[in-house]
Amino acid sequence: MARRTGRRPGNLDTRQAILDAARAAFAERGFDGASIRAVAAAAQVDPALVHHYFGSKDRLFLAAVHAPVDPGELLPGVLAGDHAGLGERLVRAFLGVWDSPAGTAAVALLRSAVSNEWTARLLREFLVTQVLRRILDQLDVDPAERPLRGSLVASQLIGLAVLRHVVRLEPVASAAPETLVAAIGPTVQRYLTGDLADVPAG
Amino acid sequence: MARRTGRRPGNLDTRQAILDAARAAFAERGFDGASIRAVAAAAQVDPALVHHYFGSKDRLFLAAVHAPVDPGELLPGVLAGDHAGLGERLVRAFLGVWDSPAGTAAVALLRSAVSNEWTARLLREFLVTQVLRRILDQLDVDPAERPLRGSLVASQLIGLAVLRHVVRLEPVASAAPETLVAAIGPTVQRYLTGDLADVPAG
Repeated sequence: MARRTGRRPGNLDTRQAILDAARAAFAERGFDGASIRAVAAAAQVDPALVHHYFGSKDRLFLAAVHAPVDPGELLPGVLAGDHAGLGERLVRAFLGVWDSPAGTAAVALLRSAVSNEWTARLLREFLVTQVLRRILDQLDVDPAERPLRGSLVASQLIGLAVLRHVVRLEPVASAAPETLVAAIGPTVQRYLTGDLADVPAG
Repeated sequence: MARRTGRRPGNLDTRQAILDAARAAFAERGFDGASIRAVAAAAQVDPALVHHYFGSKDRLFLAAVHAPVDPGELLPGVLAGDHAGLGERLVRAFLGVWDSPAGTAAVALLRSAVSNEWTARLLREFLVTQVLRRILDQLDVDPAERPLRGSLVASQLIGLAVLRHVVRLEPVASAAPETLVAAIGPTVQRYLTGDLADVPAG
């Protein structure tokens, strides 16, 4: 019997075809606009197979962007506890990921997003839908302010990652995590819950 | 008379040879460790010619790193005035550069630093010797804290540039400059002159 050369359910080619289609769909239409059904159609497989491999749209997205960690698993620990300590806990968890073995994948994603517009789109979707929205939905702040608050938090955390792990400016590059938590935690706290127009006099 | 094919003083090859030698010297030995004499020797020209083309080590460095602006011209305006408004003025001046035609060169420098270790070294030297040192030397803060304060400022400003001009996360990507000055100015102010271990209770 001649072997078929086309895709068979369950093989690596199929999984990769789904991931390629997912990257294209998420970059083009965003996380909210891309459906598992559309990804399956683009990869020429049954939607049930996408569910079988990846379980959920969140997990498909994380695999497609090569996410270093699943924020859905990390963030509940950050969000538990008093809101006044949220900034510190977020900086501590963020540093924990980048200083861990997963940090290599995080650096790769960041480098790729800086040089490639499609990966930049995927990183934006990752930040907004997997991280920032999950945090800000828990906070008692004006919904209209949430996007600005979220992108300010991202500006500080991404800048911290770039300086510590890519440009490697000292002493941020080798500072103890708790030094950075104490210095940067209050910044993130203010961006999340503080008064953003609280401009000092002068 | 046969034309000589070697370098002649005053031609474009000579200028480029000096810049190439300067990039290598500054990346390898840092701004403070590299001398005009050593750059001239590596480029096989007379040190007087380096002075003739570039005037000073600062200007040679700015040309070698393709600096989008000369912080030596911009910073006096930022430093003039009350110290309480320094954070805001620095964010305003920073946004002014990135939002101007010079921003294209700034984005190119940033992209290159993220993908190339040598350019990363040059960017570090640029941040420390051309920007941060000039600001922190003017402030009444413990000299031992200056490097940390400087690298924290850089983490916020570089993160702002990455989010606004490279990853383009909204609404930071298209926010009015004064919105960002009001939101981020106090962060930069605290990093420059505030209490960095001022951790909120909890």
